[in-house]
Amino acid sequence: MDNCKFIDNSSGIADVAGFRLSGVACDIRGDGKPRLDLALIVADRPCAAAGVFTRNRIAAAPVVLGREQLQHEGIFRAIVVNSGNANACTGERGRKDAEAMRRQVAIALGCEEAAVFVCSTGRIGRHLPMDKVQRGISAALAELSTQADASLRAADAILTSDTRRKVCSIEVTTAEGVFRLAGMAKGAGMIEPNMATMLAFIGTDAQVADADLRTALQGAVADTFNAVTVDGDQSTNDTVLLLANGASGIRLSAGASPGWLAFCAALHQLCFRLAQMIVGDGEKISKVVEIRVEGAATAEDAQKTARAIGNSLLVKSSWYGNDPNWGRLLDAVGYSGASVSEQSVTVGYAHADGSGAVTAFARGEVFTSNHAAMKEIVAQPRFQVLVDLGMGAECARLWATDLTEGYVAFNKSE
Amino acid sequence: MDNCKFIDNSSGIADVAGFRLSGVACDIRGDGKPRLDLALIVADRPCAAAGVFTRNRIAAAPVVLGREQLQHEGIFRAIVVNSGNANACTGERGRKDAEAMRRQVAIALGCEEAAVFVCSTGRIGRHLPMDKVQRGISAALAELSTQADASLRAADAILTSDTRRKVCSIEVTTAEGVFRLAGMAKGAGMIEPNMATMLAFIGTDAQVADADLRTALQGAVADTFNAVTVDGDQSTNDTVLLLANGASGIRLSAGASPGWLAFCAALHQLCFRLAQMIVGDGEKISKVVEIRVEGAATAEDAQKTARAIGNSLLVKSSWYGNDPNWGRLLDAVGYSGASVSEQSVTVGYAHADGSGAVTAFARGEVFTSNHAAMKEIVAQPRFQVLVDLGMGAECARLWATDLTEGYVAFNKSE
Repeated sequence: MDNCKFIDNSSGIADVAGFRLSGVACDIRGDGKPRLDLALIVADRPCAAAGVFTRNRIAAAPVVLGREQLQHEGIFRAIVVNSGNANACTGERGRKDAEAMRRQVAIALGCEEAAVFVCSTGRIGRHLPMDKVQRGISAALAELSTQADASLRAADAILTSDTRRKVCSIEVTTAEGVFRLAGMAKGAGMIEPNMATMLAFIGTDAQVADADLRTALQGAVADTFNAVTVDGDQSTNDTVLLLANGASGIRLSAGASPGWLAFCAALHQLCFRLAQMIVGDGEKISKVVEIRVEGAATAEDAQKTARAIGNSLLVKSSWYGNDPNWGRLLDAVGYSGASVSEQSVTVGYAHADGSGAVTAFARGEVFTSNHAAMKEIVAQPRFQVLVDLGMGAECARLWATDLTEGYVAFNKSE
Repeated sequence: MDNCKFIDNSSGIADVAGFRLSGVACDIRGDGKPRLDLALIVADRPCAAAGVFTRNRIAAAPVVLGREQLQHEGIFRAIVVNSGNANACTGERGRKDAEAMRRQVAIALGCEEAAVFVCSTGRIGRHLPMDKVQRGISAALAELSTQADASLRAADAILTSDTRRKVCSIEVTTAEGVFRLAGMAKGAGMIEPNMATMLAFIGTDAQVADADLRTALQGAVADTFNAVTVDGDQSTNDTVLLLANGASGIRLSAGASPGWLAFCAALHQLCFRLAQMIVGDGEKISKVVEIRVEGAATAEDAQKTARAIGNSLLVKSSWYGNDPNWGRLLDAVGYSGASVSEQSVTVGYAHADGSGAVTAFARGEVFTSNHAAMKEIVAQPRFQVLVDLGMGAECARLWATDLTEGYVAFNKSE
């Protein structure tokens, strides 16, 4: 990918031409503490859009609206996002509140209501304080800017328990010219494959039709946002939205052209980096472990195995304790539901870059002499767990965190 | 069940005629600390037997042997159990070690090897120190006794991270006479429905054929041992074994007779009480929560819903913090995979005895005014979570624990 280049010191979506952003504080949490909690992303011209949403059957009002908006080809202009309140499990009033948010933005921009996406994140089951939200939207509309600091304020306003801002920008050089993609995201709890409690917003100045944009986004999320887990709790609000405003003048369409392939590769890189920022900032974690499963009879078996390991309390606790307790790994492999036997399976560890791989157990045989080497690996903040089920040729990768006392203490109450 | 009576101050299996037990210390953990770690249960006469084992595809050597022994009708005499080492993921040598354990007991008793069950619990992936185990079995054979203290030593010898001994005895009076059932069990981590990391051994002096005994045991475990969860980790070693020695002279066979129904009811009561002891002694827990799901479209949906709630890190953390965070309950309901919608589902809380039920959320509507009542309920060490999916008539019950910082600290290393 020598034609794709990460932009140093990303300013988030303001790195892409044709987007204005703002982030304001409107005390949605109601604790009187000043913090940014409402973001606005506006494209100067009509955009194509693509979205991927939570598969949770109890979806927040903005997710329900967003899915409806993407049912049809359309013209899209903006995304309004609040943190501090998920607007989930809020019934008919929740839907009306989400509609009111997009209506206010649409009126100000002079566009259709369906051109404005709404996203929320935070506590489930509370109605939005709409007076504050509406004052916040007014302020955000007034502060829209193409400047870096406005874009970074927007990126900060969507955070909840995150400890770090998550932005990333890529520039792509093709024979037809240069275009960019940039994004911002938030974690950091209720993080599980299949759209975790996470939001990500991506803008590009490439010109791409809705259908092609959706193909590209679907392809990008599978092994990026959908391949990270913090706590196994899939949220009601997970959303990834991608807006393409065409400001670069470079028109791309799905196919084998170098421009399209470069776009898809850059989108994948961007999603991957944002997803890694999410898992790396998981609530009170101390480690990120890459679980590499191969030799599965089916792709589903490979996924099940990786998720059983990545969501096992006992495995996650032992990672926290620097304990190469591969017996717990094998236990999780065994109950994952994947086809496997003690005589077929091999497990081991490697350094984060894949070097220094050591076998713990292979087809019924224990490698006791590797204990010291394993102990050294699992004491690192990043390492790999290697599993070969010995049943076929399918594989999966998942990035999972450890489980700490801090996570429990943090989530005792909200 | 007025013909079934729990026996006060259970001595465990010695409360049943015709069983001798012993528990000895043989330093299987190798830390030199004196603790009981090998138990022997011997019937004076040939027994019928039934067993239920883990569904984990990576099963410990003793589980593999036990399943084979129960393939055929047979004559059973004894169970030898060690704690401190699971003899799981130990390959061919693990199997040979388990075979050597039963051979030693069989030779001493003058019975077939297949008449002796072996069980192990403890760390996965280490070979048994067979010299110590064999000295321990010799000592245990020498100390076999019908006395209460020997039986209680056996019950203590099977414990691992348990903080309390788990024994229970029932006497059943029927028109044909009196018979008894008594059992002992261990927890306390890797506890999940479908045979958790748990062992339970039950003896009865009723005379029941193998096939009928298996029917009765299968019926008893579903909503007892298989309806508790501590950490969602299903073990490689879970085993429930039931021996019927016929010493009471009362012959029972499957059917509608009062004696058979009383036997099944008593077995269910015994399993239920032992299962409750296991969940109530979960590692470092502070609460046991009864999850009652109704209104499910299918029995599988009801199970999925209960387990998604009972194994959610966020739900379990909030229970620990006395936080009636019903939004997290709904989130888990939504990702459980069960058919449900925000407009169909109702969730609430009740006291442990079912009294004082309060609604948190019903079909799209939030009951904010019930917050104080909910807060009072979830501050109790035992309470109920009530879920009505509003999709059908199937239901499920699951007893789950909270998740504490102590659990994580305890399981950091083993």
